[in-house]
Parts: sequence; C-alpha cells; structure tokens
Amino acid sequence: MTQAVRHDSMRARNLGVVLGEVRRSGPVTRAALAEMTGLTKTTVSKMVADLLAAGMVTETGVPSRGERGRPGTAVALSGGRVAALGLEINVDYLSACVVDLTLEVRLRRARAVDNRAASPVETLSHLREIAREAVEEARSLGLVVAGSTLAVPGPVDDGLVHSAPNLGWRDVHVGELLDGLLTPLPTVDNEANLAALGELWFGSGHRDFLHVSGEIGIGAGLVVDGALFRGSHGLAGELGHVVVFPDGPPCRCGGRGCLEQYAGQEALLRAAGAGTVEELAGRLREGDAAALAACERAGHALGLALTSAVHLFDPGTIVLGGVFAPLFPWISGAVLETTAARLSAIRDAVPDLAVSRLGGDATALGAAGQVIHRIIADPVAYVTASRTAPAGSKPR
Amino acid sequence: MTQAVRHDSMRARNLGVVLGEVRRSGPVTRAALAEMTGLTKTTVSKMVADLLAAGMVTETGVPSRGERGRPGTAVALSGGRVAALGLEINVDYLSACVVDLTLEVRLRRARAVDNRAASPVETLSHLREIAREAVEEARSLGLVVAGSTLAVPGPVDDGLVHSAPNLGWRDVHVGELLDGLLTPLPTVDNEANLAALGELWFGSGHRDFLHVSGEIGIGAGLVVDGALFRGSHGLAGELGHVVVFPDGPPCRCGGRGCLEQYAGQEALLRAAGAGTVEELAGRLREGDAAALAACERAGHALGLALTSAVHLFDPGTIVLGGVFAPLFPWISGAVLETTAARLSAIRDAVPDLAVSRLGGDATALGAAGQVIHRIIADPVAYVTASRTAPAGSKPR
Repeated sequence: MTQAVRHDSMRARNLGVVLGEVRRSGPVTRAALAEMTGLTKTTVSKMVADLLAAGMVTETGVPSRGERGRPGTAVALSGGRVAALGLEINVDYLSACVVDLTLEVRLRRARAVDNRAASPVETLSHLREIAREAVEEARSLGLVVAGSTLAVPGPVDDGLVHSAPNLGWRDVHVGELLDGLLTPLPTVDNEANLAALGELWFGSGHRDFLHVSGEIGIGAGLVVDGALFRGSHGLAGELGHVVVFPDGPPCRCGGRGCLEQYAGQEALLRAAGAGTVEELAGRLREGDAAALAACERAGHALGLALTSAVHLFDPGTIVLGGVFAPLFPWISGAVLETTAARLSAIRDAVPDLAVSRLGGDATALGAAGQVIHRIIADPVAYVTASRTAPAGSKPR
Repeated sequence: MTQAVRHDSMRARNLGVVLGEVRRSGPVTRAALAEMTGLTKTTVSKMVADLLAAGMVTETGVPSRGERGRPGTAVALSGGRVAALGLEINVDYLSACVVDLTLEVRLRRARAVDNRAASPVETLSHLREIAREAVEEARSLGLVVAGSTLAVPGPVDDGLVHSAPNLGWRDVHVGELLDGLLTPLPTVDNEANLAALGELWFGSGHRDFLHVSGEIGIGAGLVVDGALFRGSHGLAGELGHVVVFPDGPPCRCGGRGCLEQYAGQEALLRAAGAGTVEELAGRLREGDAAALAACERAGHALGLALTSAVHLFDPGTIVLGGVFAPLFPWISGAVLETTAARLSAIRDAVPDLAVSRLGGDATALGAAGQVIHRIIADPVAYVTASRTAPAGSKPR
C-alpha cells in the first residue's frame, strides 16, 4: 500500500519534471531530457510514452546533433490536443478563449451584455452558452478542454464572490451555479489578477510590473520577478478604491473619492458625454474638448493613485490595460505629468508607463494560461484521464 | 580541485542544515538530528563538533528519553558567544543593540542627537562611538560581534542612501564612511523594513502584518507569511508619501499632501504645540484640547493612507509602531473610524489595529535579528573564522 502510494507520487512528480523540461528546452531528445532532469533513460522513456499517449507532447523530426539516443527524434510540447478555457464575466461583456498547451490562442468569443441588469443566475446561464459553444468549437479543432478558470470583477474566496459592487453581486457562490457545465468545475479568480497574469504570459515580456486593468472598476495586479503578489487574503491590488480626493463623491464600496469615481469607465464616459469607449476614442481623435478634458482629469486622478501605489508597491514598469489601452494616447500624458512631479525627486527611477498590447483580452487569456500552467506543473491527472477516456481524436 | 570545492560547499550546506534544525527543535540529541536531517550520524557528529568549537551550540544535560545515542546529552543554540550588532541612525537619535544567537537582547544604547544639524560624516562618526562602546561592552559579556546591520531612514541600494530627505542626505555612501569600524562592514538597510522584521522576530508573534513605523518620516514594512515584501527595487512601503490630500502642503519628497505632512512626528508636534513626544503624551494624559485635536487629525490622515494601503497590500493585522506606539490610545480611535467607514462595506474583514510592544526599539532589534538569521542560515564563515582566530573567551 505505502509502496504503491510512493510509486504513484513519484510517477506524478516525474511526469511534471519531464513535461516542465520539455516546455523549457523543447524540442529535446530523450537522452538530453535524462541528462537535464537526472532521471534514468528508462524513466524518461516511460514518462514520454505516457505524455505522447495523452497528446501533451509530440515527436518531431528536428535533427539534434551531438546527442546520443535515436538520432533525429526530439520531443516538443503538442498544441494538438490538451487545451484550456478562459472565461470572463465583466460588467458589460462576457468573453471566452481557448488556449492550447503551447499557449497558442486557438479561439476567442466576446459578447456585449449588460450584466448589471441581470441576476447572477441569468448572467451565469448566459455564460454557460458561450462556454458550451467554445468547448464545441475547440472539439471541432481536435482539442480537449482539460480545465477552465473564470474571471470575475471582484474579490474571490474559494468560489465565493463576497462582493462585486459593479455587478451588484453579494455572496454569490459561482462554483455551485456552474455545476454541470464543465468538468472539473472552473476555478474562479479575480479579474485584475488574471489580467496581470495574461500580460505576463501573453504580453510584452516584462517580469516586474504593475498591470492596471481599467474597466468599470479599476483593478491592479502586481507581478514581482514573474510571480503575482496576492496579499494575505488574496485581495491585494484594489487600485480603484485607493483614496484620491478624501472628500470626493461617494463610491459603491462605501468610501468616498476613490480612483474609480474619476477614472473608472463610467465616470470617464459621463464626464466626456460619450456612450461607449469607441465613441469616446472617436471624439478624442477629432480633438473634442470635453473628451480631452475628461481624459486629462482621469489621467490626473490615475497619476495620484499610481503615486501612492508606487510608494507602496515599488513596481518595475506600469502597464495600462483594459480600456486604458485604447485611450492611452490621451490619458498617459496627465498620468506621467502627475507621477513625475511627485516621484522624481525622491525615487531614482520613476517606473516607465507602458500600454498593454492585449487591452481587455488580457483577463480571459490569463484565465486560460493559468490552467495551462497548472496542467504543465502537475500533468498526472490529465495523463490518467486520457488513459481511461474513450478513444477520441488523435494527437496531431 | 572540483572535489575539494564540492566537499566544502557540502560541508557549508550541512552546517546550515544542522544549525537550523537545532534552532527549530533544540535541545535535541545527535541521533534525533540525524533522523530529522537525513544526514548520517557521523556527519551530524562532525558538524556538531564544529559548531561547539565555534560557540554556536552548547551541550545540555536535558534527558531525552526514548532516543538512542549518548543518553542525556542534547544540543541547543548557545547564547554565550556569537552575537550581532543592530545600529540605527534616525533623524533625532542614534541607537545600538546587541542580540545573541538565541535572539536574547543583551544590551541597548540610545542617544538623542539632532542629525539634521550634522553632516553625514559627523553623524557617522557619532555612530562609530556608540558602536565601539557596544562592541566593547558585548566583549565584556563574553560575546563576539560576528556581524552588524545599520538602519537608515531612507531607501538604500547596496550601501548607498540615494535620498533621506528628513536627514538632508543625498547619495551618501554609508558603507565607505564606516570603513575600519566593524569587520565585516555593516549591511545597510531601510529603517521601516528592519522595524517590520523586528516586530516579526521580537514582537507579538504575528506572521502577516503591515508594520507602520512612525518617526519624523513614516515608513511601513509588509510581512506576508513571515516574509518581508520589498518590491522590485527594495523601495516598497513608503507609506509616509502616500497621497492623502492632493492639494495639501508641499512635502520634502517633492510631492504635496503626503501622509507625513499630517501624521509625521514633526507635523504632529507642531499641530499640538509640543516640543517632544513625551511632552505631547503628557498633555494628552491631561486632556489638553489642542493635543487631542492634533492626534485626531493625524489619526484621520493615517486612516486615509491605511485605507489605500489595505486596498493595495491586503495585509493581515496593522501594527502601529515608532512614536505611534506611545500615542496609540489617542490616535487609534480616529484611524479605526476612518478605515472602518471606508473598508467595511467591501471587505469581509477589516484588518485589526494593534500597538507594537517594541515602539522605536523595533528597528535596531530587527537590524541585529537580520544578522542572526543570516548567520544561522549560513554559519560556515563564522565557524571558519572561529577556527583561525586567536583563542578568546570560551563558550559558556
């Protein structure tokens, strides 16, 4: 019994070690894998056979000179079978994407929906449809969705959304409401955290940054040396509720003068007299004075909140994402002016301000990427599932 | 050559493993150490012999039933020989303390000095005197100061204090100015970081907290699961420059309306019309209206900055230290009122507000404690030094 348990956990560990090394170094021969991991060639061959059967790696014809073993047969991650589903509920849209094991984005879906007008049950039933379509389309591409993560715009604790004020949600058990949709049930995580991870894995290659996720709410995710900072209860990074003007207008959070009241999507559109971000961007391109003033004001408030955030977090670069990405040309000036005036005398280096290439897509991508990273770190469950599952599509 | 290097690095590693286990589990027998560390009994005996010779561990007569090996002979950390010096330069005082390997505080020295009126060279020459006295007094107790850390009230980068506005320092190479005083040269670190570590190692036992170090400047150190968060350049936690009222009075940092302008020691004393913190505390005890109003105002500003800090950092407990410790009874009410009003609707748990038992002593204690933790993690240098040094005081 004990021996069997030990054997199983050793196999699980070895699968993870081999797959991790294939991800880092692939395409790579079995002989090189044995050398890199310190495992015997027999063990490496067994692990590779299991990973091939599960469709997680593939053999390539790449010649690998100077290495022993079957000449010309290397192993690389396969994007052909195992995939992950990233889902996002935001205030005014739902989205989904499917990413394969090589982190290639295979499909995206987004739908504008006013989720404030809907109950959590309605919103989640809408999400089910989109998720089901995405899973079916993935299947038609030969992919098996092995897991999923759902992003929500509020702090999450073990599947419970305690409070998402911009959705009007309180104490919503998302996990339970999604029962029967996907196996295993999606992991639920905070939108701003996943957007920062999306920037880390799919963005411009920074490993030290504060990602600002501008939506109707404003969240931030701090990445230090490639790792997301989550705080003591997983609730860190609520930049939108940093106090900017203490006697300012009341906020849905119960406070007053929070950043969201000046630079959140709604505040910004209201000040500019625009209905949508697209409309606002159009007016900005035309040089509309009210639109420019609204961005100036939002940028100044964002600069004040980021001054406080830089003093506390000491980030590398600051990356503006979400709706701040398309509005970057009209907001960044006021942000930089405010932060430089307040930071440059005391800090050697004021963090650069960069624009996210991903914008609002970062969140769903981070959600899918999180699943892929978990699968690669601990593939045994997926390898085992593929053994017992009925024969389906072959790995490409 | 390669083998000798391997042997040396293995010995270094094993010394650290054995000493770490003695710290965690001591008093403990050699047989139990072998079992806990997975090292052979021969290796454990050799490492223990070296540590005994270096005065880092001591044999105790504690009976240890049910274990094999020499009955009744256990090994524990020794407080009798190896010690660390913690030093602090603050705006209006200098201090030193010596801590032994068991983290017992063996001596403390503090002297009120106006370091703003002095040049860096004058301040550091003053510090030399205090350090020399502390080292000599430690020697008279049979202790050998094996290392030191110096705390300064500003961000530090590899011994360079780029800017400590409250001291009037810019680009001071502290390391160079201390040459010849202590061997090895002191590590230089930020005051607020070391105060948080002091609270972690010598305080009330929390492992998740934001320690607020109220002096003339206000720094903060965030500890998450027993580890200090330092940010991307080691400059995190500058709570004193979080923006509280954006259009408020100019601050020495170049910004406006920073927390320090409302709740820093100077602002607080000025508002209360008091000359020292002791005088202010006396007036508060007498119910003086101006003193009470000054604390109310400082507490409100501190509450606003902490609201932003809680949203960004998501700390466990908040611990008020430095001058906020003696003033806690008169400041904490306004802090709590402000944070509760702004946090309780959106956060499940508003962090508790606690008072530091250590107050201003936390910094020098954290500085000395940091040295002890480094010695215990990597004792080989100290073990080797004790072999080549002339015979001195015996370990007790």
